[in-house]
Amino acid sequence: MSREQRAKIDALLRQPQPAGDRSVEEIRAGFRALMAQMNVPTQIRTRTTTLGTRPAVLVEPAGPPRPGTILYFHGGGWVYGSPQTAMSLTANLVTRTGFRAFSLDYRLAPEHPFPAAIEDTLDAYRALLDSGEDPSAIVFAGDSAGGGLTVTTCLAARDAGLPLPAAIVAFSPGLDATRTGESIDAKAGIDPLFTRASLEHTGAMYLAGQDPHQPLLSPAVCADLHGFPPMLLQAGTNEMMLDDSTRLAARARAADVDVVLDVTADVPHVFQSFTGILDEADRALDRAALFLSQRLRSRDADAAP
Amino acid sequence: MSREQRAKIDALLRQPQPAGDRSVEEIRAGFRALMAQMNVPTQIRTRTTTLGTRPAVLVEPAGPPRPGTILYFHGGGWVYGSPQTAMSLTANLVTRTGFRAFSLDYRLAPEHPFPAAIEDTLDAYRALLDSGEDPSAIVFAGDSAGGGLTVTTCLAARDAGLPLPAAIVAFSPGLDATRTGESIDAKAGIDPLFTRASLEHTGAMYLAGQDPHQPLLSPAVCADLHGFPPMLLQAGTNEMMLDDSTRLAARARAADVDVVLDVTADVPHVFQSFTGILDEADRALDRAALFLSQRLRSRDADAAP
Repeated sequence: MSREQRAKIDALLRQPQPAGDRSVEEIRAGFRALMAQMNVPTQIRTRTTTLGTRPAVLVEPAGPPRPGTILYFHGGGWVYGSPQTAMSLTANLVTRTGFRAFSLDYRLAPEHPFPAAIEDTLDAYRALLDSGEDPSAIVFAGDSAGGGLTVTTCLAARDAGLPLPAAIVAFSPGLDATRTGESIDAKAGIDPLFTRASLEHTGAMYLAGQDPHQPLLSPAVCADLHGFPPMLLQAGTNEMMLDDSTRLAARARAADVDVVLDVTADVPHVFQSFTGILDEADRALDRAALFLSQRLRSRDADAAP
Repeated sequence: MSREQRAKIDALLRQPQPAGDRSVEEIRAGFRALMAQMNVPTQIRTRTTTLGTRPAVLVEPAGPPRPGTILYFHGGGWVYGSPQTAMSLTANLVTRTGFRAFSLDYRLAPEHPFPAAIEDTLDAYRALLDSGEDPSAIVFAGDSAGGGLTVTTCLAARDAGLPLPAAIVAFSPGLDATRTGESIDAKAGIDPLFTRASLEHTGAMYLAGQDPHQPLLSPAVCADLHGFPPMLLQAGTNEMMLDDSTRLAARARAADVDVVLDVTADVPHVFQSFTGILDEADRALDRAALFLSQRLRSRDADAAP
């Protein structure tokens, strides 16, 4: 039924939406309503805590956890979204891997433009390290803007002289504030969610007039990824941000970084949210879970004599 | 120990080898000796059979098989190699998936240049279909030249009006007889196995003066992949043929084909052969097995109401 599933998801996302001149509060409420429709596994426990300087939701498997921590960054264009709107993705990684996750409620634009979000995610990572967690037991994961934060937080950690996490998993990451990928134009109309105007509308709130040509804003365009941990980038061919991933993967290969560029055809931005509805979502999450498990499991293997 | 493992493999492959003016029989014997060092799982049963017009080795799991057939094409530049030299790879896919595999002993150059190999692999696929096997229960897998055959056999099948297999898995596929990938030069000296001269030496035997600018010889350069099944391409950053995979993946994305481009840093051509010696080999094979299992399992899911 996968072909019909893909068409159904596309139609859902194409439902008439308020125009681009919606207020920030209207955008946030609309996203909450959309993401509230996603399936969240029930075999988890959640509680609100603090990580670094910000609130976070700790998501634990109902059964005995495996050693390992996912630091999760939700999507929403750095303007909307929260740990709750990404709970389906976070919880599905937790139930599939057995690791716990912290999903960070980082500060949002326009109230807090760049680099506020990265300050918060770096603080959260530093807090995890300070708590005694070994970096080789930590992975970064995130979707859309949060997928971008998996990469930029790793850049910021490297610049700060911190040890890097064991792996990065990014679902449809936003990695280019210059918006120069070919897919931005090539997928216009095909992408059911975005237009260039809508991307620029929220993008400008995060940018707040700053130069987009810098690694922490456009890693797909200008970041040096040497020393990065293994990365898994998943994207769909029906998204304007596809080339954010393809270009980052090329930079990773050039920097001798393990990188899996995992592209699913005819699915939209962050299609993994549609678990239980779209077969491709569940399969992609299973591949992500294996990737994460391999990278945390490998710590023991690499330490063996 | 992975860093040390990678260095050990590199040194092994860099051992002095006879020069490029070796006879075909010397090349074949050298490759047999190299590949005889690889670990082959013992939990398999093998027997020689015929598939289409050629001999094949049927590889079955020791335990109860799961429904599904891997049609495997060994590597060796279309000039050397056999089902036996690729037995480690074939058997590891069988033990990890539970599927059976047929590894085809297709005709080799220079005795039988292009398109003899593709005639044989297409005959083998047709024979599987004629035996009543559903195409959605068949996957193509192969390494190096055989990885190239997974793609070109699929092209030939499409041209012949046959239904296509459920998936393709290619380890360091050879997909460009024009040898125009940037990695051909960029990885010279880094690649422990090949030089441009050595690639052209055997390549010329397969080409036999024919134009390399055609899809069945250079699919990474000029094949239209519309309608192709999901593909997994695995390669290492230490190989001259890396861009055969990166360019095919780009063509697949452009044709709206599911494609996973899975690149491991600092490992050589067909590093998956070093299972049991190199952690990356086992991890890559585990990812390949999940990919194959998802694609054959999905047949039932897609057929459900």
